Amino acid sequence: MVTHAGPAGPPRLTRDEFGALYRSLLARAAWAAGDRGALDAITPARVLAAAREVRTGRTVTLAAPVETLPGPDNPEPARHRMSGQREGDDTASGLHFAMDSFAMNVHGDADSHIDALCHVIYDGTLHGGVPASSVTAGGATALSIEAAHNGIVGRGVLLDIPRLRGVPWLEPGDHVTADDLTAAETAQQVRVAEGDLLFVRVGHRRRRAERGAWHAASTRAGLHPSALEFLADRRVAVLGGDGNNDTAPSSTEGVDFPVHVLAIHAMGLHLLDYLQFEDLAPLCEAQRRWSFLCVIAPLRLPDATGSPVNPIAVL
Amino acid sequence: MVTHAGPAGPPRLTRDEFGALYRSLLARAAWAAGDRGALDAITPARVLAAAREVRTGRTVTLAAPVETLPGPDNPEPARHRMSGQREGDDTASGLHFAMDSFAMNVHGDADSHIDALCHVIYDGTLHGGVPASSVTAGGATALSIEAAHNGIVGRGVLLDIPRLRGVPWLEPGDHVTADDLTAAETAQQVRVAEGDLLFVRVGHRRRRAERGAWHAASTRAGLHPSALEFLADRRVAVLGGDGNNDTAPSSTEGVDFPVHVLAIHAMGLHLLDYLQFEDLAPLCEAQRRWSFLCVIAPLRLPDATGSPVNPIAVL
Amino acid sequence: MVTHAGPAGPPRLTRDEFGALYRSLLARAAWAAGDRGALDAITPARVLAAAREVRTGRTVTLAAPVETLPGPDNPEPARHRMSGQREGDDTASGLHFAMDSFAMNVHGDADSHIDALCHVIYDGTLHGGVPASSVTAGGATALSIEAAHNGIVGRGVLLDIPRLRGVPWLEPGDHVTADDLTAAETAQQVRVAEGDLLFVRVGHRRRRAERGAWHAASTRAGLHPSALEFLADRRVAVLGGDGNNDTAPSSTEGVDFPVHVLAIHAMGLHLLDYLQFEDLAPLCEAQRRWSFLCVIAPLRLPDATGSPVNPIAVL
Amino acid sequence: MVTHAGPAGPPRLTRDEFGALYRSLLARAAWAAGDRGALDAITPARVLAAAREVRTGRTVTLAAPVETLPGPDNPEPARHRMSGQREGDDTASGLHFAMDSFAMNVHGDADSHIDALCHVIYDGTLHGGVPASSVTAGGATALSIEAAHNGIVGRGVLLDIPRLRGVPWLEPGDHVTADDLTAAETAQQVRVAEGDLLFVRVGHRRRRAERGAWHAASTRAGLHPSALEFLADRRVAVLGGDGNNDTAPSSTEGVDFPVHVLAIHAMGLHLLDYLQFEDLAPLCEAQRRWSFLCVIAPLRLPDATGSPVNPIAVL
Repeated sequence: MVTHAGPAGPPRLTRDEFGALYRSLLARAAWAAGDRGALDAITPARVLAAAREVRTGRTVTLAAPVETLPGPDNPEPARHRMSGQREGDDTASGLHFAMDSFAMNVHGDADSHIDALCHVIYDGTLHGGVPASSVTAGGATALSIEAAHNGIVGRGVLLDIPRLRGVPWLEPGDHVTADDLTAAETAQQVRVAEGDLLFVRVGHRRRRAERGAWHAASTRAGLHPSALEFLADRRVAVLGGDGNNDTAPSSTEGVDFPVHVLAIHAMGLHLLDYLQFEDLAPLCEAQRRWSFLCVIAPLRLPDATGSPVNPIAVL
Repeated sequence: MVTHAGPAGPPRLTRDEFGALYRSLLARAAWAAGDRGALDAITPARVLAAAREVRTGRTVTLAAPVETLPGPDNPEPARHRMSGQREGDDTASGLHFAMDSFAMNVHGDADSHIDALCHVIYDGTLHGGVPASSVTAGGATALSIEAAHNGIVGRGVLLDIPRLRGVPWLEPGDHVTADDLTAAETAQQVRVAEGDLLFVRVGHRRRRAERGAWHAASTRAGLHPSALEFLADRRVAVLGGDGNNDTAPSSTEGVDFPVHVLAIHAMGLHLLDYLQFEDLAPLCEAQRRWSFLCVIAPLRLPDATGSPVNPIAVL
Repeated sequence: MVTHAGPAGPPRLTRDEFGALYRSLLARAAWAAGDRGALDAITPARVLAAAREVRTGRTVTLAAPVETLPGPDNPEPARHRMSGQREGDDTASGLHFAMDSFAMNVHGDADSHIDALCHVIYDGTLHGGVPASSVTAGGATALSIEAAHNGIVGRGVLLDIPRLRGVPWLEPGDHVTADDLTAAETAQQVRVAEGDLLFVRVGHRRRRAERGAWHAASTRAGLHPSALEFLADRRVAVLGGDGNNDTAPSSTEGVDFPVHVLAIHAMGLHLLDYLQFEDLAPLCEAQRRWSFLCVIAPLRLPDATGSPVNPIAVL
Repeated sequence: MVTHAGPAGPPRLTRDEFGALYRSLLARAAWAAGDRGALDAITPARVLAAAREVRTGRTVTLAAPVETLPGPDNPEPARHRMSGQREGDDTASGLHFAMDSFAMNVHGDADSHIDALCHVIYDGTLHGGVPASSVTAGGATALSIEAAHNGIVGRGVLLDIPRLRGVPWLEPGDHVTADDLTAAETAQQVRVAEGDLLFVRVGHRRRRAERGAWHAASTRAGLHPSALEFLADRRVAVLGGDGNNDTAPSSTEGVDFPVHVLAIHAMGLHLLDYLQFEDLAPLCEAQRRWSFLCVIAPLRLPDATGSPVNPIAVL
C-alpha cells in the first residue's frame, strides 16, 4: 500500500513498477475479461439489493450542466442550436414547435461522460485482448458503449476524500491513495462491496466553481494508480469521479493516463469522468449515509467510445 | 368517452370540440401549471414506493439505438464522428484513445427523446401561460429540460394496445382511445395511479423492424386526443410512446399535433417520443406484471427543448 | 393496537417497546426524511383540493391569545411593551404612532406555537440523522422553521376526542389511542388522508378556561405513543393539539416526551402545541363537517426552532 | 387625478389640500368606520370566491426573513436567543430540546408587519373617532390587532409598478399615483374590486437586495396620498407594500406619513409594511395572473398595535 504524502511528494511509479501493477490487476480482474467487463459483477440479486437502498425517495443528479462556452478546460465546447419550427407546423392554428440540435465531443474535460471499454488502446489491443483494429473511422465494432444499453443500475457508494481530510477540495496534482479510500470508508461507516458503483470525490467541481476553470489537462487531482488495488480487492463494477480520475501531471513514468489504462484496459471498468457530487454530498451528510441506488443510462450511440450521461442517485 | 372505431373511421374532432377538450384538461390539470408541470405529482413517498416495484433485478432499455443512416422517417440522422487520438497522447507508451463526437436533432422522427415543456408554443404562450418570447435563438429561458435535471424516477406502467387487440401492431393512422386504456388495464390487471410514468405501446417500432421504415410524418398510429381524459383522471406524471404519441394524419381539424398541444401545453406532461418496448414487453409478459421502477435521465443540455434519452426499467 | 383504558390504567411502554415503535415508525416514514419532513406529502394537487374544501367562507383562528401574565403553566410569559412615539413624529400635525415591542419564548406551555424539526435532539441527532452539532448558540443551521417559510397550506381535519367520549374534556393524564382516532373518524364521518393537517382535540383549553390553569408540565392529556401508528398509516403532514400532544406524566419508561420524539425525530412531523379548538369545534358541529382549508404561517424567524403561530381554518 | 411626474417633481400637497383629501376619503369610507374598519368588506361570499382563485396549488410567502443584524434601516433589530434545554429534560434518554426566544419591535423599517387600526393617533383620536386615551402604557384597549384574530382571508391582487414602468424598482423618493394603479390594472388585465387585499410593488426589497440597505426613514418610494382615491373607489380591505407604503420625504406639507393617516385613520385600512414580492411576482408572471387567495394571520398579541406577519399567497 502507498501511504498518502500530499501534493509535495506523490510517489512516482517507474515504467517497471507500472507494468507489475498492470499485470497484478489484470490477473485479479480476470473475471471481468468479457465484453461487458466488470459490469458482470452486477447480478440481478445485486440490483434488487440496490433498490432496497432507497429510504427517502430523494433523487439527485451526479452530472454537471453541459457547457457551451469555451474555457481553459473546454476548448471545443458543446454546440446548442435552436432549429426553430418543424416542417409542416400548422401556423394557422397558432401552433409552433421550439426545436433544437446539439453537437459535442464525448470525452471533453468539462462535461460529465462515461468511457466505454473501447476508449483505451494499449499495446495494440483493447480490454480483454480485443484487437485495436476493431476500432475504425466508422466506429468501434467491439466494446462500444452499447455494452451498457440496458443501463448500469446498482448500489452507488460515494467516498468523499476532501471530507476525510477536512479540506474543501484536493489541490490540482494531489492524488488519492488506497489508504485514503479505506480511511474514508471508516470515517463514513460504509464498506465498498462487489458490484458497487464507486464514486470518489476529490472536489474538482467545487474548486472549479469557486476558483474558476483552469487548464485541467496540465494539473488535476485524481487517483494514484496504486489506489486501483483497492478497487480490485472489492471488485467494484464502475468508477466515477468529479475530475478525470487520473491526476495531472501523471504519477507514472512514460504513461500519461495510468488510471485509465489500469481501470479500463486491465480491469474492464467503465469510467465516469467529470461528474459533480456537490448536490449529492450534502444529502449523504444529512442522512449520514453514503450508499444509494444509482442508475447510469448512456445514450445508445452506435459503435461509440462513450456517451454524455446524467447518473441519478436515489436515496 | 370515444369508443374504438379502428383505422376505418377514427372520430374527427372539430376545432370547437378540440377547444372544449383543451379547456377541460387545462382546468383538471391546473395543479400541474408550475415549471415542472405534472412532475410535481412524483413525491418522495411515490419514488420510495416505486423502488419497491423491483422484484427480480432485471434492467431493460426503453430506447432504440440512435440512428445514423438517413431514412424516410429520418432525413437528418444523427452524425457520429470518430475523432482519433487526443492531443498529447503518449504514443511511446503504446497508449492511444479512441475518441468521438456526435451531433443530432433532439426531436427527430426516429430517435428516442423527451420533449421539455417549452417544446410546444400554442396561441402565443408555453405551458402555464409563459410568454413564447421566453424561447429565443439562444435557447429556452423557461420550462427547459433542466426541470428534470435530477431525473424522473417513479413507477412505470406499460399499457400494451396491440396485445389487447391481439394484433402485432396498430396500423398507421389507427388511434388509441380512453376505452382502450381502461380495457388494457383490465386485461393486464394493473391500474394507473397518480404520479405514474405511463407508457402506451402501439407497436410502431415492431412494424418498423419487420416492414421497414416509412414516412411516419404522413401516417402514424398514436393516441386519440380524447384519450388524454384518462391521463387527467389518473394524474399521471409523464407519457411515453413507441411512436410519436400523436396520430398522423391528425384526427383534429386544423391542428397537426393535438396530443402534443393537450399533453404538454394544457396538462404539463413531459412527452417521450419514439421509445421502444420490444425488449420490455416480453419481460412483462413473462412476469405477468406491467409495472416497474423507471428512471429517465435527460442530459443536462442548457436551455434545451428536450433531450435524447435512454429510459431504464427495473423489474 | 392499544385499546383505550382511561386515566386509571394507561398502558406503559418499556424502553424496549418504545425502541421498537421508534424503529417501526422511522421505517414507515422514510419518505419524510428530507429537510421538510412530512411536508413533502403536501403536493400542489392537494393544496388545490384543500381550497375546494371551502364551502361557506367562514374563517376561524386555531390559536389562543398570547398570554402576558404568569401562571402555573406559564412562568415566563410573553412581555408586551408599548414603545410610545417614534422618533421624528410630526407632533405639530397632531400625528403620533402607538408602537410596541414584544418578547416571548417559542415553546412555552401556554402559547400556541409550532415546533420545527430541529426542536428535538435524540441520541445525538436531529430528524433524518442530521448531527446535533447543527444546533448552536447562534441558532439551528438545519431543519429550522424556515422550512415552512411558504406556509403550510392543506386540508385540515379535526378529530374531537371529548366529543367521541361524551365528555367536556379528557382529564389530565388521560391519553388518546389509535382506536380513539379511528372511532372519531367513524363518529364524524371523515377519513384522514395522505398530506392532511391533523388536529386532535383533547379539551385542554376548555378545561383550562373553566377550571383555571394548572401545572401542565406535571399532568396533561395527550396522545399515547402508539397512536402515532395511525398517523404513519395515513401519512399526515402535520399534527396539532390543544395541549402539548404528549401526555404527562409520560407513558414511556425513561422518555419524557415520547410523542415529540416519535413524531418529530422519527416521522418528520412539524408539531403544533397548545392550539385552541373552542372556536372551530362549534362551527364544525354546525356544518357537520370536520375538514377544512387550513393555513399555518410561521414567522420567518432565522435559524429558529419554531414560531408562535395563528393557524387559520377556512370552512 | 394626479398624473405621474417622476422623482424630479412629485406633486406637493399643502396642508389644506391634505385636509380636503382626508375629509373626502373619510366620507367615502364611512362604511368602514367600525372597529374592524375596511375588513368588513370581506364577506364570507368573498372568502369563498377567493378560495376559487386557487388554480395550481402553489403557495408563496409575502414576508422577508426577520432580520437580527443592525442596519441603516434597522437600528434595533429583532433579537433571537437560543435557550438551550428545557427544565426537566430527560438527558438519561439522550433526549434534549433545542429551544429559543425572540424579541422584536412590531413597526421596524426592515421586518414585514401589519399595522393595527390603533397604530395612528391623529388630532386626538384613533380611526372612527375612538379617543386616543384608549391607548395606554398597558396597550390598546380598542382597535388592536385582535380585530384580525380570525385571520384576513380574501382575494389578493398584486399591482407591479416597476413592471409597468419597465424598471427594476422605483428610486427612493419616487411615488405611485392613482394613474399608475389603473395603468397597472390594464397592463396586467386585472381589476381591483371591493374587499380585495391590494398589494402594490415598488421594488424596495429588490433594490435593497441588489444595492444594500439605506436609511429608508429619509428616502423611500411609496404611494402618493392622492393614490388612495383609487383604493376608496374600489373599497379594498387591506393595503400592503414592499416598502413602508408612504414615501420619504413626505409629499405633504407638515405631515410625515400622509398615507398612514389617510389609509388607517380615515379609511380604516390595515396596512402591511415591508413585505416582499420577489417570490410572488415571477409566479404571477409565469401564470399571467396577478390575483390569488391570500391569508394574513397576525399573532394574537393582546392589546397590540400590530404584529409581525408572514402573509401567504396561494395561486
